[in-house]
Amino acid sequence: MKSFCLFENEVTDIFYEESALNGVKRVANTVSEDLFLVTGKKPNVTNILEDCRSEQIIITATLGNSALIDSFIEKKLLKVDEITGKRECYLIKVVETPFVGFPKIKQALLIIGSDKRGTTYGLFRLSEMCGVSPLVFWGDAVPEKKEKIHLEFENDIVTKEPSVTFRGFFINDEWPAFGKWCSEKYGGVNAIAYDKVFELLLRLKGNYLWPAMWNSSFSEDGPGLENARLADEYGVIMGSSHHEPLCRAGVEWQNHYTQYGNDNTWSFISNSDAITKFWKDGVLRNKDFEKIITIGMRGENDSHLMGEGATIQDNINVLKKAISVQNQLLKEIFSSELKEIPRMFAIYKEVEDFYFGVDGSDGLRDWDGIDDVILLFSDDNHGLLRAIPQPSDKPHCGGYGIYYHFDYHGGPYSYEWLNHTNLVRAWEQLTMAYEYGIREMWIVNVGDIKGNEYPLSFFMDLAYDYTNWGISRPDSAAEYTRQWIAVQFGSAISSLQETQIHNILDAYTTWSALRIPESLNPNVFKNNFHEIENTHNVVTNIMAQASALRNELPRQCLPAFESMIYFPLMAFFNTMLLNLEAGMNHIHAERGSLVTNQYSTSLLEKISMDRYYIDGFHKFLNGKWNHMMESAHMCFRTWDDNNWTYPIVQNIVPIPYPKIVLSFRGDNTYSLGHHWQDRIPICNAEMTRPDINKIIFDIDSRGDMDFDFSITCDKKWLSFSQNNGKSNLKEQPRISIEVFLEREKLGNDSEEIALIQINFCFLDGTIKMALLNVKANNKDYSQHPGAYLESQNYLCINADHYHEKTDVDGMGWKVVSRLGRTGNAIKSFPVTKNWENENNRPYVKYDFIVSETREYIVCVYLSPRNPMIKGGALKGFYGINDSQPKSFDIVGSDYNTGGFNKDWSYGAINNIRKISISISINKGFNFLKFYATEANVILENIVIYPKDKPLPETYLAPPESYRVPE
Amino acid sequence: MKSFCLFENEVTDIFYEESALNGVKRVANTVSEDLFLVTGKKPNVTNILEDCRSEQIIITATLGNSALIDSFIEKKLLKVDEITGKRECYLIKVVETPFVGFPKIKQALLIIGSDKRGTTYGLFRLSEMCGVSPLVFWGDAVPEKKEKIHLEFENDIVTKEPSVTFRGFFINDEWPAFGKWCSEKYGGVNAIAYDKVFELLLRLKGNYLWPAMWNSSFSEDGPGLENARLADEYGVIMGSSHHEPLCRAGVEWQNHYTQYGNDNTWSFISNSDAITKFWKDGVLRNKDFEKIITIGMRGENDSHLMGEGATIQDNINVLKKAISVQNQLLKEIFSSELKEIPRMFAIYKEVEDFYFGVDGSDGLRDWDGIDDVILLFSDDNHGLLRAIPQPSDKPHCGGYGIYYHFDYHGGPYSYEWLNHTNLVRAWEQLTMAYEYGIREMWIVNVGDIKGNEYPLSFFMDLAYDYTNWGISRPDSAAEYTRQWIAVQFGSAISSLQETQIHNILDAYTTWSALRIPESLNPNVFKNNFHEIENTHNVVTNIMAQASALRNELPRQCLPAFESMIYFPLMAFFNTMLLNLEAGMNHIHAERGSLVTNQYSTSLLEKISMDRYYIDGFHKFLNGKWNHMMESAHMCFRTWDDNNWTYPIVQNIVPIPYPKIVLSFRGDNTYSLGHHWQDRIPICNAEMTRPDINKIIFDIDSRGDMDFDFSITCDKKWLSFSQNNGKSNLKEQPRISIEVFLEREKLGNDSEEIALIQINFCFLDGTIKMALLNVKANNKDYSQHPGAYLESQNYLCINADHYHEKTDVDGMGWKVVSRLGRTGNAIKSFPVTKNWENENNRPYVKYDFIVSETREYIVCVYLSPRNPMIKGGALKGFYGINDSQPKSFDIVGSDYNTGGFNKDWSYGAINNIRKISISISINKGFNFLKFYATEANVILENIVIYPKDKPLPETYLAPPESYRVPE
Repeated sequence: MKSFCLFENEVTDIFYEESALNGVKRVANTVSEDLFLVTGKKPNVTNILEDCRSEQIIITATLGNSALIDSFIEKKLLKVDEITGKRECYLIKVVETPFVGFPKIKQALLIIGSDKRGTTYGLFRLSEMCGVSPLVFWGDAVPEKKEKIHLEFENDIVTKEPSVTFRGFFINDEWPAFGKWCSEKYGGVNAIAYDKVFELLLRLKGNYLWPAMWNSSFSEDGPGLENARLADEYGVIMGSSHHEPLCRAGVEWQNHYTQYGNDNTWSFISNSDAITKFWKDGVLRNKDFEKIITIGMRGENDSHLMGEGATIQDNINVLKKAISVQNQLLKEIFSSELKEIPRMFAIYKEVEDFYFGVDGSDGLRDWDGIDDVILLFSDDNHGLLRAIPQPSDKPHCGGYGIYYHFDYHGGPYSYEWLNHTNLVRAWEQLTMAYEYGIREMWIVNVGDIKGNEYPLSFFMDLAYDYTNWGISRPDSAAEYTRQWIAVQFGSAISSLQETQIHNILDAYTTWSALRIPESLNPNVFKNNFHEIENTHNVVTNIMAQASALRNELPRQCLPAFESMIYFPLMAFFNTMLLNLEAGMNHIHAERGSLVTNQYSTSLLEKISMDRYYIDGFHKFLNGKWNHMMESAHMCFRTWDDNNWTYPIVQNIVPIPYPKIVLSFRGDNTYSLGHHWQDRIPICNAEMTRPDINKIIFDIDSRGDMDFDFSITCDKKWLSFSQNNGKSNLKEQPRISIEVFLEREKLGNDSEEIALIQINFCFLDGTIKMALLNVKANNKDYSQHPGAYLESQNYLCINADHYHEKTDVDGMGWKVVSRLGRTGNAIKSFPVTKNWENENNRPYVKYDFIVSETREYIVCVYLSPRNPMIKGGALKGFYGINDSQPKSFDIVGSDYNTGGFNKDWSYGAINNIRKISISISINKGFNFLKFYATEANVILENIVIYPKDKPLPETYLAPPESYRVPE
Repeated sequence: MKSFCLFENEVTDIFYEESALNGVKRVANTVSEDLFLVTGKKPNVTNILEDCRSEQIIITATLGNSALIDSFIEKKLLKVDEITGKRECYLIKVVETPFVGFPKIKQALLIIGSDKRGTTYGLFRLSEMCGVSPLVFWGDAVPEKKEKIHLEFENDIVTKEPSVTFRGFFINDEWPAFGKWCSEKYGGVNAIAYDKVFELLLRLKGNYLWPAMWNSSFSEDGPGLENARLADEYGVIMGSSHHEPLCRAGVEWQNHYTQYGNDNTWSFISNSDAITKFWKDGVLRNKDFEKIITIGMRGENDSHLMGEGATIQDNINVLKKAISVQNQLLKEIFSSELKEIPRMFAIYKEVEDFYFGVDGSDGLRDWDGIDDVILLFSDDNHGLLRAIPQPSDKPHCGGYGIYYHFDYHGGPYSYEWLNHTNLVRAWEQLTMAYEYGIREMWIVNVGDIKGNEYPLSFFMDLAYDYTNWGISRPDSAAEYTRQWIAVQFGSAISSLQETQIHNILDAYTTWSALRIPESLNPNVFKNNFHEIENTHNVVTNIMAQASALRNELPRQCLPAFESMIYFPLMAFFNTMLLNLEAGMNHIHAERGSLVTNQYSTSLLEKISMDRYYIDGFHKFLNGKWNHMMESAHMCFRTWDDNNWTYPIVQNIVPIPYPKIVLSFRGDNTYSLGHHWQDRIPICNAEMTRPDINKIIFDIDSRGDMDFDFSITCDKKWLSFSQNNGKSNLKEQPRISIEVFLEREKLGNDSEEIALIQINFCFLDGTIKMALLNVKANNKDYSQHPGAYLESQNYLCINADHYHEKTDVDGMGWKVVSRLGRTGNAIKSFPVTKNWENENNRPYVKYDFIVSETREYIVCVYLSPRNPMIKGGALKGFYGINDSQPKSFDIVGSDYNTGGFNKDWSYGAINNIRKISISISINKGFNFLKFYATEANVILENIVIYPKDKPLPETYLAPPESYRVPE
């Protein structure tokens, strides 16, 4: 154990040699500023050893670039074998009296990198050890002030090579938020701005970046080359987005084509000479900077390469021609072997077809023109893998990458406002990518950066240290979140507060990932099964917790809390409340109920709160983040923000007649009172669940005429919160009646229906009557402990609540916490194992009781996943009772990702896939088995209902059914 | 020429003999009250000659009941041959010194009836001659006060027998309006109330009545038999509705069944004995009153006879059994030949099947059990004939009747509020009935009576004097309306005012018949083709005319004007405005335009005006008509008033972004400004019509951010009311730009498209752009004088605007004014002529010019009519240019009337039937011919549009196309 006193009264100096890399010097200075934040004193940063005043000093250097380190090694003060020749590793070591000539320096903390980025990571590691979060700027994580800093080292710190070679993010879809913010704060998307971006990337241990490119040209806007130069100085490896080949930003072509000819057509058929020259100049310009060159070609503005008339083969031909020209160009410029020139080819959207080849056309897959190129696969723009390399594929020298999305500008709906990523789902899909061999490049679209600090941190850490955060740790996201919160808030918060923050963050990402706010609208959540009501309660509760935390947290925690949690959370949940209330407003308007106008008032309030939270965010910290929450964010009618409005605010004018509207709470059917043509009254069967003994019905009014009412019932087992009353519609348009069940008064083992009669006497003397039915039962199910019970014509079982799980060779279904839309899900492991063609498959088993022998729909709620083989399908296997397993299609081979595929689009919007299977089931006890097929078959819920009684509309699933006590 | 001084200083006495019929005495007294209204003096009514004080007297008597008349005849003072033995005729004659013994009596005006009703009609004729309207009570027609009355007789007045034997109406669907009114004014639907009803019936020269029966029992509520007794005294022949056989009101069974057994089932299978006894007592009770006994049987409450499981044959069997029992019962009670007992059997709704027989079952049609019975056919409840007797049918001794509707409680939508009858349409269908031999009984459902005074008057006069008002006079309705207005308002109004009243009355019945207010809702009228805008203008204009008339009319005219015209007209048109504005409110809310909120304000105002007009009506004349306008009357969601609301009032909250909404006035497409994905701007082509040189586009805003704008255009032929401007959204959310065409600047014979660019600069500095296209042309069509011109991708020709008409043997199409939904229509005459199977058919020919050679849809707009043969179809014939006639199906033989038939229902709701025919048409000049088939094929418009460019939604038709000047 060694101790290093970094700070006590004074702070240690930081020393690097004159020869140190500029990027390292820059980072050393940044770290000195970090230390100032913690200590209140700025370390002396110097390359003159004589200037060092402190007894302890920090020495940073890079292997191969430091005479000092070489001398230390020579003097046996140090061994660097463990990092020598490695990528991006560092060694942190305390050395006593390092300099014979400077006995004043008693101790040195060596931060030695195997290369430039290794050194940088080491330096930022020091900041973190002192309590400075990587999000010190972007997340406003104010470090805890410290009285002294003694660093304790049990051993030297020696890092391994990062798990993924190239790790980084893409600033994208950056208008209006990031773009306006940059312009206001820095005068443009220039090097002053990129300084903050590069620093973030490196603090997060990334090394690769795609720059902003909506109306930006990275290599021209610095000003000039300054952005590129600064990146290179920092050691940031620049890429360009998937459709910007050969170091050229997308916008450059239209700005510069006149240098190359008169034709501005971005076509490699009609204009290849000009485009080739244009590319050449791009590469020459950026020749000396560290980079990975994007090759290939797409249409302008991220569009399709060729027109609608072109065949796949036409596209492949053009693509091959372009890449051949690109390769040739690069060989000429760099005068080296192609495999020495880092290149990337992105298999994005329709390029997948050109890569794999379809319709009898051979794709690029087996073409040697891309042999040494990193093949960058892409998710489906919504965080879900699509075709990726398979274990059986022949090895590809260039390695594989994945282009992932935390932000997207495209269909079915863009998401550019805030964080919508559920970390568990990202973990689940990204670990699959890694397990399938995608380890060369991970790049994630983070939109404006701001808003995505939390998932971005996870993404970078997962890519950097897969061993720790990867497949071996199913609780990765939860543990990461715990640590992330600790990093941002340090020890200033109590462990209760830490848990509370964890909870609200989980709630926020659960709901924002469940349905992005952009695609929320008043029709999404339904009024059945108490869905709107329950969701509203949950949301209100979380918002109250967030507000309480904001009041209770220590002052220094507030910037980070408000910046990364409070404002986005409140603004997001307010869009949910807004749309839930708009839903109720519209539902009651359709009924013509007076209560509509109460909802319109609260809807107006929520609309004003939308501005309140956004303005709050834009103004806090003296406007530091002005514009960053400016993206449109609800009720999109098209894929983008071109066409959105707040929900329509609906009011009703009461009719001048006596007319009531009667409904059971949490059920969208309603009655206008007894009509001579009515056959049966509306019925509530919630109390056929043994655990529900209270329901509510609401007496609303369509008219403005007050009334007296009295309630009678033909059954003794029901009682009411009031048996009669008087309306006062002006003050309170709704009368709510609680209905209580005394279950013991029900006949044993019987189901009964009560008839409630409500008599109304209106002010004008009109007499009206309404009838309601309530069904309840008192049956004995104790002979089937643990079984789920059909009630209200449905059964719903959460997938993790199986009764029995059978693995095969230690492999099988596992519960992954929070992987589902609203809860846990089950997925089969190992993720590379496919059971489809095996006879003996692992399974889970669900026990349940149905009320009648008949045809039922078993509706399987699955996480929406894409086949990982191009043109592949997804299949599930089930079995009822002891019958043989039967397969069911989850997605067929006609499935593909993209806006035109209905199934994909449904999954992307709703984050669920529902597969209905018709099964004949006998009355009483039964069980269902679900067999493992492959890791992308992920079960969330099982919903069962009679085929001839369609389930009332619900956006989520119905509440989980009652389970007989075990 | 004889002159009779009825009033000069004093009014003549009225004399009848002691022996006169009680009804006649009663009416004589009523007439004396009429004369009081006119003269201010009440005639002395006496049966003692000696009591007469005036030198002139009125003597009234009935043939066969008057010794006096007999003596006059004997003295050759009088000849009555012309009316002797006739039904309901009267003679009015001036006789000098009628009484030798009373020389003081210089002159007598004899009013002699051939029977009781003849005398009554004669007496009321006198009232009318003195200026008392039959609607003196029900229509508040205040007679003009006169200084003197000299009646001039060129000849004696001798009337013919009425055209239809039994003529009357049915008070029905009488709650809440008539029912509440009766209860409030008379304490029930009793003899005091019926006194007013009988008087009305007789003043309208009717003789037959179906009493109110919703919760009323005519023969029990008088009190007791008083209603029936009074009817008999008046000479009103009582019937009962089609489903109330043997003098029993519908409600009586449930009130009295215990007298006949324990079973309350209204089934002639299970409970025939009890029902037979019940019927017997009914007939015995009403035995002595003049009546027509309804026979047959339906289910209770006007429902189906048997359950859904029963076959047609089952129904026929039961019906035959019931009628046989009924006939037997009647024979026993009246001890006479069946044919002497006036009976009616109604062929209503499903009874049609039992009468005609279907599915291989012989109906009642050829069964001798109904030989001498009046067979009452029915319209389709919406004023349109369905199966009726055909000229080829074998004669039916009992004769035929028609049950017609001015009011209906049933599907697709009830109409019970106000008058919705277009007199021309009623004339057209009722004359058909008469021509096809329906002359024995005409009965019309008039709902609450009030509201239907005007069409009821016409119905009764048409039935009374078919010679004058029937088929021979195609302008019958217009001429009748002129006379009707004259009768109600006398000479107090100017001829201009008479015309104005006529115009607004026509407008009112046109629009209320076009679409009953009950079925109006915000989605009915469309925003294309300026439909909402134009309709709104028309309605506003009529309402302004009605208001102006109300201010200008002489004081004594106001009660009748307000009672029968002003209040119903204003209340009705306000429902139109309300729904038109709600439509615009919802359309703009969907667009998210700020202008929405202006419409919500005016919608709220219209909703309050709904109450204002109804309250006004209920309060005027000291509340004389309180409750009479109380029926629900808009936005029905089901067939009845159980489920209606005012339209939802929608508001929008502006989004905090710069966003305009651009649209051409009168066209529902809109643009949100230029978007990078836009392909083509929205385009207006109205100015491709040579007669349109100005259009408007509206700049609305979805956001709350003000802006400057400037307009440029690439064509010189367009100019704008302003080329730039500034918004002030708080004050005025809409900026309207007029666009002017200088047609002479267009190239000769060319069609051109202008591109309008509007640049917006918003307060926050955002720059946006919008593009609009305007198409115009300047082509020369003078080589085709009179042809209609395709423009805006459509052609619309009003059917009466044919270019050529060819008759066959003097028979063929004729224009019937105002028979169409919005204008004239053409119908073939004579109405009994069917051309379907002839080779040489009369035709009309339409000339038009289309812009391209392609497939067009020719959409024929026909008046919705039903086949007049059970199971029959309707066919049309057309020809394009010189091709052979081709047939098209208007309704097929699967068509039937009633809510379950989609085609029928569409026609009943929309009052139009649209038949689309796909025809290939060559560019340039063409003509279409439409051939006569039968009188129920009535052409309103011909609309032509390209098959691949569907016509924008419109409720009416597009505006009639431009016609090249002749």
